[in-house]
This record gives sequence, C-alpha cells and structure tokens, in this order.
Amino acid sequence: MSETRSRRAGGRAARQAARMHAHVERVPFLTRTMAPVEMLSEEGLATIEANADRILQEVGIEFHDAPDALELFAGAGADVEGERVRFPSGLCRSLVQATAPEQFTQVARNRANDVVFGGQGTIFAPAYGSPFVRDLDGGRRYGTIEDFRNFVKLAYASPWLHHSGGTVCEPVDVPVNKRHFDMVYAHLRYSDKPFMGSVTRPERARDTVDMARVVFGADFVEQNTVLFSLINANSPLVWDASMLGAARAYAEANQAVMMTPFILAGAMSPSTVAATCAQTLAESLAGMAYVQLVRAGAPVVLGSFASSMSMQSGAPTFGTPEPALVLYVMAALARRLGVPFRSGGALTASKIADAQAAYESANTMQPTMLAGVNFVLHAAGWLEGGLSMGYEKFVLDADQLGMWHSFARGVDLSENGQAMDAFTTNEPGTHFLGHPHTLANFEQAFYRSPVADNSSFEQWESEGAKDAAARANALWKRTLAEYEAPPIDDAVDEELREWIDRRKASFPDASE
Amino acid sequence: MSETRSRRAGGRAARQAARMHAHVERVPFLTRTMAPVEMLSEEGLATIEANADRILQEVGIEFHDAPDALELFAGAGADVEGERVRFPSGLCRSLVQATAPEQFTQVARNRANDVVFGGQGTIFAPAYGSPFVRDLDGGRRYGTIEDFRNFVKLAYASPWLHHSGGTVCEPVDVPVNKRHFDMVYAHLRYSDKPFMGSVTRPERARDTVDMARVVFGADFVEQNTVLFSLINANSPLVWDASMLGAARAYAEANQAVMMTPFILAGAMSPSTVAATCAQTLAESLAGMAYVQLVRAGAPVVLGSFASSMSMQSGAPTFGTPEPALVLYVMAALARRLGVPFRSGGALTASKIADAQAAYESANTMQPTMLAGVNFVLHAAGWLEGGLSMGYEKFVLDADQLGMWHSFARGVDLSENGQAMDAFTTNEPGTHFLGHPHTLANFEQAFYRSPVADNSSFEQWESEGAKDAAARANALWKRTLAEYEAPPIDDAVDEELREWIDRRKASFPDASE
Repeated sequence: MSETRSRRAGGRAARQAARMHAHVERVPFLTRTMAPVEMLSEEGLATIEANADRILQEVGIEFHDAPDALELFAGAGADVEGERVRFPSGLCRSLVQATAPEQFTQVARNRANDVVFGGQGTIFAPAYGSPFVRDLDGGRRYGTIEDFRNFVKLAYASPWLHHSGGTVCEPVDVPVNKRHFDMVYAHLRYSDKPFMGSVTRPERARDTVDMARVVFGADFVEQNTVLFSLINANSPLVWDASMLGAARAYAEANQAVMMTPFILAGAMSPSTVAATCAQTLAESLAGMAYVQLVRAGAPVVLGSFASSMSMQSGAPTFGTPEPALVLYVMAALARRLGVPFRSGGALTASKIADAQAAYESANTMQPTMLAGVNFVLHAAGWLEGGLSMGYEKFVLDADQLGMWHSFARGVDLSENGQAMDAFTTNEPGTHFLGHPHTLANFEQAFYRSPVADNSSFEQWESEGAKDAAARANALWKRTLAEYEAPPIDDAVDEELREWIDRRKASFPDASE
Repeated sequence: MSETRSRRAGGRAARQAARMHAHVERVPFLTRTMAPVEMLSEEGLATIEANADRILQEVGIEFHDAPDALELFAGAGADVEGERVRFPSGLCRSLVQATAPEQFTQVARNRANDVVFGGQGTIFAPAYGSPFVRDLDGGRRYGTIEDFRNFVKLAYASPWLHHSGGTVCEPVDVPVNKRHFDMVYAHLRYSDKPFMGSVTRPERARDTVDMARVVFGADFVEQNTVLFSLINANSPLVWDASMLGAARAYAEANQAVMMTPFILAGAMSPSTVAATCAQTLAESLAGMAYVQLVRAGAPVVLGSFASSMSMQSGAPTFGTPEPALVLYVMAALARRLGVPFRSGGALTASKIADAQAAYESANTMQPTMLAGVNFVLHAAGWLEGGLSMGYEKFVLDADQLGMWHSFARGVDLSENGQAMDAFTTNEPGTHFLGHPHTLANFEQAFYRSPVADNSSFEQWESEGAKDAAARANALWKRTLAEYEAPPIDDAVDEELREWIDRRKASFPDASE
C-alpha cells in the first residue's frame, strides 16, 4: 500500500466527503447521560462471576479443530486435555483485563461517522444475517444483493443508525464463496458509516481486511480499527475453528471483534437467568482471552445474545422478561470487566411488523438502552427470530432509535428547562401554547415521529385508515427514491473494484 | 346500616366467594423486587421540589366555585385572594406529610383481591373514560353498558389485572344522570376485584359510597378503604368545584382519591420535562392538602398523567421520550413525599392495535414499571389517546402485564437458579434440553404468552398468516364465552338493586 493511500482516511477525501454531504442528516453515536440500571447487587454480580470462573476451571471450554488456541492457552498456563481447555481461576479475566482496551474507536470512511465503543456510548446497527427479506408489496422472499444494497442505503440515510452493520441480509443470488466481496463493497460504496466484516471463513475475514486496506491504506488500518466483526460461540462451551479463525484474522490486523455466545436458554444453557449469565460470561471470557493471546491489545467486545424459548415447541421467543434480565446483568458484568458490551436490538418472533413485533422489540430495546449497551446489533429491521429482514420493520424501528436519542439526553435542568419565568408570567387557567417560552422551545420540545399517526380518528380514516406498517411502506420507498450515494475517490473505487474482480476470478464459478 | 351488613365484608360471604372461585386464576398485585430507576440526582429532585414550592407560593392555585377549599386553606394559613390561594413555603407538603398515609389497603369484595397502595407494590387497572369502543368485527362505535360489562368481565377473568378500574368505557346508551349506578353495579356484580367510584358530580360520589355501604356494610366502609377514585386537576393551576366536591365526598367517607394533574405538555404546562414535573407536583400537592384538610388521614395518591404534543397539530402524542422522563421524575418525587404514586399505562395515539400502538404502549409501560408506579390506570385497552377502548388491545396489553409479573421477581440467585450442578453434569457441546435441571424447571422457566406467535413461518402461514390483533380477537371472545360471574350474597344483590331502582326513580327521565 502506498503512502498516498495511507493518508486518505484522515485527509482530503474525507474532508471533501463531509463537505459534500452536509445534506445528509448526521447524528453522532448516542451518549447516555443517565447511570446504567442495575438489576443485581455487587454481591449478586460477584456470585455470577464466581460461577463463570468455576465453569472455566472445572468444566472448561472446548476449542474444536483449533490447535492454535490449544497451544496459546497451554502456553498461558491452562490445562489442555484433547480439545478441552480448563482455566486456572481468574486466568481468562486477567488476560482480558491486562491488555483489552476499555474503549476504542472504529474509524468510518467519513470521519464524521467514527464511533467510540465503550463507556456511555451506544451505537445502533441494522439487523444481521437473515436469509429472507419482507416488504408489504412482495411479502417474504429470499434476499438479493439488491435488497442488501437497499438496507445499506436505508441505514446510510437514517440519522439514527450510526453503523452500516454487516450481513444486513444474505444476498442469496450471489454465490456463497463470492458473496462477501459484494457485501463489503456495498458497505464501502453505498455508505460512509462504519461497517462489519465477513466471518464465515478465515480467508473471507482476510479478504475484508485487504479491501479495507485498499480504501483506508494499509498503514492506517494497522494503526486504526476500521473493521468490527461478529464472532459467535457454539454454545454450550464450544468455540469452533471457522469462527476462531476469522477472529484471529481480524485480531492479527488489529481489527475489532465481538465474542458473542448466541444462546437459546433452556437448550444451549440451563433455563435460568443466573445460569445463562454465568455461561455467557465464561464463553465470552474464553473467546476474548484467545483474542488477547493472538494479539495483546486487539479491541474486543463482550457480546451476549440470549433468547428464551417456547417450552412447548422449542422455538425461540423474544421480548419476554427473562432475556431482559439477562441483558441487564450481562451489561453490568461487562462494566465490571472493563470491556465494551454488545447486546439487544429490536428482536421479535413475529413474521410481520404488527403489535407483537413492536411489543417484543420494545421489550428488548428498553433494557438495551437502560442497561447501557455499547453496540446494538439488530437495532432495526429484525423479524421472525432473525430469519427475515423487514423493510417496514426497519422504518418503525429506526423511528424508535430516534426517540432514544432524545431520551438519552435526560432531564434538562437549565434555566430554560426549569421555565420558572413561564410560570410567573402566566395566569392559572391560561394555556401555555402562545407563551414566549413555548414559542421559543416549539421546534425542539418533543420528539417528532415521521411514522406515528397522531391525527384525529376522522382524519386518519379519511386518509385510508392505514396501520403503522402501511405508513412505513411509503417512507422506505421515498428514502430509497431520494437516496444519493456518498462520494468516493474515483481512483480508490476503481482500485477496489479491480481488486475484487481479480479475487473473484481466482475462484471456481460454482458456489460452495 | 345494620350490624349484619357491617360484618359481611370479612365474613362468611367473602370466605364462600373465595372457596367457590378457586377456578379463577388469581395473582396478587405485583411486588417489585428491584430498586426503582432514578433519572435525576437528589439535587435535581430538590430543584424541582423547590420550583413547585415557588409556584405554590408566588403564583398559587385557583379553586373555582369551591368556597370550602378557600375557607379550609385560609384557616390553614394560606393567603386567599378571590379564588386564588397562595401557600406559604412548605405548607402543602407539611399538610400532606403530617397525615396522609404512606401505604393503604383497598379492600375488595373478595378479600383475596385486596390491593395495597404504596411501597414496592404495583396495581394494574384497565383504561378509563373512553366514549368509544373498538373491536375487529364492529370497528369503532360508541360504548354501551354491554361493552362496559364486557370489559369488567375481561378484567375479572385476567390474572394480570388486579383492579376492575372505573369508567372502563362510557356506557353512552344509559342516561348521563343514571349511568354511574349501572357502572358501579357492574363492578360490584360482575367482578370481585377492587374498583373505582364515580367522580363526575359530588352527589354521584356520594351514591357510590352509599352503594359500597350496602355491599360492605356502613361500619366496614367507615373503617376501611373500599373505593378509590380519580380526581383530575384543571391544569394549569386550577382545581374545579365538581372534581373537588367528589374528592370531598370520598374523603369524608374515608375513601381514597388520586389527585391527578392531566397535562398535555406544551399546552397545559410549559413544554419542558422539568417544568411539567414542577407544575404536576404543585397541583397535586395542593389537591392532596385539600383532602387532608377535609379529613386528616384520608388516603390520597399523587397522580401524574403527562403527554407530549404534536407541535404541528396540537394533538397529544404518546410513547415519546419526554413523558417517560416526566414519569421517572414524578415517581421519585412521590417517594420523597411519602405517598403512593399513580401514572403510566399502555398509552397510544394509534386508532388500532398495530405496531404504533404496541411501541407507544411499551414506551410508557417500561418507565411505569421501572420507575415504581403503585397504581397503573390505563394498563390495558387504551387506544386513540383515550377516546377508544379496544377489545384486541386489551388482550395484547394484558399479556404484557403478565410478563411484568415475571420480570418483577428479578433474578433468581437460589441454588436452583444458579444451576451449577447442571454445568458440572453436562459436557461442552451437549444441549440442556433433556437435562434433569431443565426438565425440573420446564414449566416455569419462561413466561408463556397466549397471544404471541412463535411458530415457524410456514406454520404461521398455514394458520392464516394472522397478525397479533387477529389472534387477540379470538382470545377475548373465548374469555367472554367462558366467563362466570363471581358469587354474591343474593340478599345483598337484591338490596343493592332495590336501592338503585329507588334512586333512579327519583330522577327525571331525560339525561342532562
């Protein structure tokens, strides 16, 4: 990589991009002003930490087909027996605390969109990984690369999504072995927000890093986190080679990963909240310790995804009380550990953007925000337990994300916020609509939803008696119609596309 | 009232009722195990208290057509000028704190349904006051006494509603001047949960007390709170004669009232959170102080209902961030004052039970629960800013109330909850579905929703691709079809009906 390229990210192109895109509303990632809500006492949290430590020590974690992990952990003092690793008390925790950063920045192609992981920050990203998409016109169908680009564009256009996400849907019309090129290219070309890399195979993670090097410059990538990727455990208590290999590829390049147990409680963990938390902590600690052994100081995030399940059918259920409690506890455990935390989202088992979808999504997003989650994957679009990405759901969820920006500012106790002059200059029984204080605060007083209908019954009926999903349908279509791609340096774009073409040409045509 | 009657409430009839109704699932009012969530520091809360005190002192409150209030406050040391009362610093607060109970019990016809107001308790009641009802079959129409009875029956049948509420809808087919008899009778006959009295005129409040005396016995009513009623301020800073008269009637009979400013912020208060809180506190304090002057020790509840508004149309908006912040702050202020607190509910501006309705309702119910509200009016059924009571919405909301019962229990840290034996007896990579710990916890592990669809897309489609509202439609119909009235002593019922007939006959036929 040339010097020219390594200067790009912070240089002329970025400044130009920022100038040219003044018309796209930009809102920085959210900074919460209130203390996180705690559901357990210090003592309760310490109990769960002790249980996680005991799981790591007595039961251990299996690392499947990952000789490098076994070797690294043996070298660090763990007891390795076949593929099973048992950890001396406190080993994983001390490995993580010794070198993992408490906060880190993910640099975006447009530096105005950089995000900081950790502390009081919260970053919203679209839903991830669904093979299907759904809209009111076409119903449910397999996702395509066009759908993928559409969701990248919708996230780019929304002021409330700070992150472009990763596999916003599976582009099933592209061969599996070439899909990651088109996905990463879409994030780089149709958005200038930070994004997530490919994790399905270690070489695809390396391809993602190489593409980032083309755009950001190799030196810049070595010095900065420009990629952030989702690494899932194979619960209970197993990490697999493919995921670990991807994590390794990113960590070696100093790029960030979130080590996330994805747990259907009752199946992949015992059915209780406390046990699911202890297991999640144990699994994530082992994963994060591995990353620190690969490259000390590589940015890691403690991830937690826990759902309840229908004890009749075994299907995952969402928006129920138990995963909400898991979320509050895991956020507190991540704070005590000192690493950024990922969880939550607008999760639902509903197939459509109906009342079930909204109730369940809100029941996860409320704990997400109040517990103090740092990175919120699945913040918009998720349907059907993650099997489907919904266009209308995306719009409805993004509106909620906007509200959280207002909420997170907390109560304004400034002189204007207290408004005592308004009281002393207004008679009892006289409304405040025309009062100078109201007129001065008119524009910003309350969050304005673009999709909620607050009109009279008669007006709503005369406008077609539409439900929220029908109104959302019009909104995403308008957004896509008005979409303009962010600028990119033509030479960089050309080099990136040539690089992709060369790599694609080196693959057999058939998908795997 | 005879001695026989005064013994009824705690006596044979109550025990018999409890025995005969073992088949109706009863769940006691909810007791939260977690600390309330605070959004402001002690200092911030003190600032709002000081502002409320200054409003009471400098601006004062007007009591319209209420000479008794002016006289009582003048006697207590307030400055009365026309209908305006200005209060020396701290007067209202000290009047309330001197005699208002921190907690009180409302006795139900079936003592198993008694509810305690205050502390960590939370009581759920249906929505209140809508002229319209709505269901999927008939759409929106004026409420009738049949609808009224239906909602009383639905609340009775739901384990998650602890309270029968009050004006669950307006029975528009009954003349206004006789409506309260039929409403109170419906609560007493079709439910045995606690309920709310009439407040539209002082004499209707007295009628409610008289009806309670017939059923509970006069001596029992004098000694116990069996009625709880909603008294609204006429914000900003006005209390009206009709509402105060009803409050007086109840307080004189030692029955409970909630003194509730109903505020559309931006119109009835300045548009900021801090100002809306200060005004709500000032208005409610003045109302509660009045009640304590009428009868020291009469149970009072600090009520708060605050919505945001559309600054374009002036319409109230719900589920927005600003009223959520008001709710958190008001709950904290009520705790500091030492009186029970009423707020919240499943509020929405949506006309139907769609995603907007659910998102907005959840956005109010979450703060309602986390802030620690003691009495939740409008916990089920509310639509269209309170103009309509929805059958399907009622079912969807009640399901959410069920979830809150699980959430409020918090994290189980018992040995079974920690489940360490499950970990030490299960190999990594082996699921927990068949593990003895899972089998032992199977039934109670996760909240089971009767209305959420968690099945596969294919199954959902084969069952008609119903949305949540359509499923709720079937549920309320089944509940009404299976409804059985709670038992009542035939002699009491006859006496009550005769009493009502006599009173009705004394009225002119025309409604007012």
